[in-house]
Amino acid sequence: MSLTLDLALQLARDTLAEGETRGFLPLAVAVLDTAGQPLAILRDHRSSLHRADIAVGKAAGCLAMGFGGRELAKRASAMPAFMTAVSAIFPKGIVPVPGGVLIRDADGGLLGAIGVSGDTSDNDETCALAALDRAGLHADTGA
Amino acid sequence: MSLTLDLALQLARDTLAEGETRGFLPLAVAVLDTAGQPLAILRDHRSSLHRADIAVGKAAGCLAMGFGGRELAKRASAMPAFMTAVSAIFPKGIVPVPGGVLIRDADGGLLGAIGVSGDTSDNDETCALAALDRAGLHADTGA
Amino acid sequence: MSLTLDLALQLARDTLAEGETRGFLPLAVAVLDTAGQPLAILRDHRSSLHRADIAVGKAAGCLAMGFGGRELAKRASAMPAFMTAVSAIFPKGIVPVPGGVLIRDADGGLLGAIGVSGDTSDNDETCALAALDRAGLHADTGA
Amino acid sequence: MSLTLDLALQLARDTLAEGETRGFLPLAVAVLDTAGQPLAILRDHRSSLHRADIAVGKAAGCLAMGFGGRELAKRASAMPAFMTAVSAIFPKGIVPVPGGVLIRDADGGLLGAIGVSGDTSDNDETCALAALDRAGLHADTGA
Repeated sequence: MSLTLDLALQLARDTLAEGETRGFLPLAVAVLDTAGQPLAILRDHRSSLHRADIAVGKAAGCLAMGFGGRELAKRASAMPAFMTAVSAIFPKGIVPVPGGVLIRDADGGLLGAIGVSGDTSDNDETCALAALDRAGLHADTGA
Repeated sequence: MSLTLDLALQLARDTLAEGETRGFLPLAVAVLDTAGQPLAILRDHRSSLHRADIAVGKAAGCLAMGFGGRELAKRASAMPAFMTAVSAIFPKGIVPVPGGVLIRDADGGLLGAIGVSGDTSDNDETCALAALDRAGLHADTGA
Repeated sequence: MSLTLDLALQLARDTLAEGETRGFLPLAVAVLDTAGQPLAILRDHRSSLHRADIAVGKAAGCLAMGFGGRELAKRASAMPAFMTAVSAIFPKGIVPVPGGVLIRDADGGLLGAIGVSGDTSDNDETCALAALDRAGLHADTGA
Repeated sequence: MSLTLDLALQLARDTLAEGETRGFLPLAVAVLDTAGQPLAILRDHRSSLHRADIAVGKAAGCLAMGFGGRELAKRASAMPAFMTAVSAIFPKGIVPVPGGVLIRDADGGLLGAIGVSGDTSDNDETCALAALDRAGLHADTGA
């Protein structure tokens, strides 16, 4: 199984719809394939200027390191110098907080990553999890 | 009038749909607001690794210079050193070929830009024009 | 309403004049539009080498995240890894301290941002606030 | 003698005023000191997104190489690979066309550089020359 554009777009739209339903702040969402390249990036026109960059950074950072955002957050606490160092190396950065989620199939195989930004990191992640659940995909948050 | 996410996503989807209908190679499309920030970026999962970057570079270059891709192409022919120079300065680059189109309203006001990559530059542009036409928006190709 | 060059230049000059009146250290000031692009950047010739970059980073960071510098400072304290991460992603960086101020109209609409650097962050901000007040514009410091 | 902020701002404003008088397209102008750092950057709010970056690149490139824009243009023609190479090295790029002008005192001493972008390169340069002439400063265009 692999992530198609149609499936990625469905994930992106469902993420934003979840935020609307919950009354969250306007969001940006990025769905990247296993190569870290975009399949679907959507940014609410009411969100701030660089929200899409943050969403991409969350997803790209998870793929770069092979962990969900919660594990990246733990490592940023334990090894801040390491995280700062790699953020300057990775071409799309790394944003080590919740809201970056690895997308896996039923066997744990990696399909890509989703990143969300706009509200609190926990709320951002909530929206990604809802979308992945609706699609029957496994969310690896790094928790 | 300004570009909403819904309208941007419609433009992006219609661009890809036009390419499917015409049997073009798999495409990537980027719809940016007047600030050069993404509203909708979609990349066909069958397209090559950095097609989204090219689509973004086409749209961003049009906004950076204030001309559609066909005018940029003319300038790249007439002033190759200038175009090389600015491609290193602009944060998302500039791709001075057809397939980058400024989006204008009925009064000529700038709403954003769309960039398409995947098939020939002319075919890329054809798809963007079809989407803009369907939405009743004015396409400024720089021709 | 939107920010013209004339208005932006008036804001920049009034910011520097306020610093002179108060006997502050030499300042740099940047007034950016909603796209994060410069309308007016002025740097006192007696200020240090990269003061203009700091002023730009303060204003650009506010626009990138959608908050004034005081809110950014709070977030940098609460989430240092996040702030370090995005500083490597945003093309003009983010400087999460007072002295970066969102410029709003009477209805709260975003017009751009102003950033000031050279003296203490509080003093930097004081100068921006004086200039915005003189122009009848609303200052969103993030406080 | 050295370039003060007041003098740099006068040069920047006179450059834009000359463009208005002549009916040129909206311009951006950058006046940099001998260290390549901004003293005054102004961008007409009607000009395209990255015009200020181009103006800075014209001025910074002159300072980087020690020649006015017309000499840089000649070298770009004679040695395109060299110019492409350094454009990727210099932090603010190099834009090797007219409109980048070294500012010199009566003895030929370097005071800084001015860069202009928005209309044709020749027209851009015309505006800078008018401003330098009005201020009694020597323009080194590299011709």
